[in-house]
Amino acid sequence: MIKFNNISSEEPYLIFQDWYQAAVNAGQLRVQAIAISSYNPKTELVDSRFVNLKYIEHDRWVFFSNYNGPKAKAFETNKTISALFYWNATDAQIRMRAHIEKLPAQESDAYFKARDPEKNALAISSAQSQEIKSYEEVVKNYQAVLEKGDTSVRPEYWGGFQFTPYYIEFWSGDRNRLNKRQVFTKKQGSWKSKFLQP
Amino acid sequence: MIKFNNISSEEPYLIFQDWYQAAVNAGQLRVQAIAISSYNPKTELVDSRFVNLKYIEHDRWVFFSNYNGPKAKAFETNKTISALFYWNATDAQIRMRAHIEKLPAQESDAYFKARDPEKNALAISSAQSQEIKSYEEVVKNYQAVLEKGDTSVRPEYWGGFQFTPYYIEFWSGDRNRLNKRQVFTKKQGSWKSKFLQP
Repeated sequence: MIKFNNISSEEPYLIFQDWYQAAVNAGQLRVQAIAISSYNPKTELVDSRFVNLKYIEHDRWVFFSNYNGPKAKAFETNKTISALFYWNATDAQIRMRAHIEKLPAQESDAYFKARDPEKNALAISSAQSQEIKSYEEVVKNYQAVLEKGDTSVRPEYWGGFQFTPYYIEFWSGDRNRLNKRQVFTKKQGSWKSKFLQP
Repeated sequence: MIKFNNISSEEPYLIFQDWYQAAVNAGQLRVQAIAISSYNPKTELVDSRFVNLKYIEHDRWVFFSNYNGPKAKAFETNKTISALFYWNATDAQIRMRAHIEKLPAQESDAYFKARDPEKNALAISSAQSQEIKSYEEVVKNYQAVLEKGDTSVRPEYWGGFQFTPYYIEFWSGDRNRLNKRQVFTKKQGSWKSKFLQP
């Protein structure tokens, strides 16, 4: 699930909440899964992975990650990302473009403090995306941190990312591919909307 | 569903088929939905959208699209893409990197000829991603093509894309985020495998 905290009342945010509720009502599994795609000019690679969107704070969309992994490095070198929901229960796609940045440290601290110790032990113990000999070693590192005790202090290499979309497309699938597509683009503080061909 | 035609028997292809079957058995909706992410150096935009993967022919992964839309333009200017499955029924993610190119014209012709006339009418009538006044106009254009008759001849602005991955990561979610990650990378014709930290 995604938490909505004082969410924006602008039109695309109203539509988003409607579509989100429709997906939840249709029994959508892992409705919070969102694909974040990035481009790293150094490696010249496009990359894409699903993360769990945790909350929307007004117009800031927030998820958490390791700060040393490949995606954090890509965000640093190229701030423009795409973010993509696909809810198969309703055949609905939401495509966004945004600039991404780190969450303020205090907000990451507060979030970390409130999490399960088990999840924090993983955040502390994992050097995300680094090679490791075996899965057993992952489990061993994790249990060592968990047994050592305090997992409430956020390590500096873990925290949130936030993005505020300036482009939001609502795509709704149709049996004959007559898909409905409505696009919102933010310019000088206000949203313009148009329809696209399927 | 995805069709497997004489699919490669290399290790990551065997794992892929196992994971695919597990997702189907778990009742995965729209198991063929795959997020294709691209980068366009002209617009400097990363973009991402779900398409339907239609078949794997040995080691060529194939889907179909309009050739004039934004994604075709991005593929032309930057051939390296990422391709991403997420099956929420099994909490499994498959992340790939590949170079993309157009399918040979004869293969696109044959595929088009065999499709439903309704789907072809849409492929013919839609200038994908161009602005349109209303959804009603989309339906009107589509019905005009359908009524005109022959929908078996592929227009030159529609056809297949194929990609052959050189990087395949199998990611399997765990309740405590102790996710399992195994990566295959193809170098000089053979696959090397390693494990990554969660």
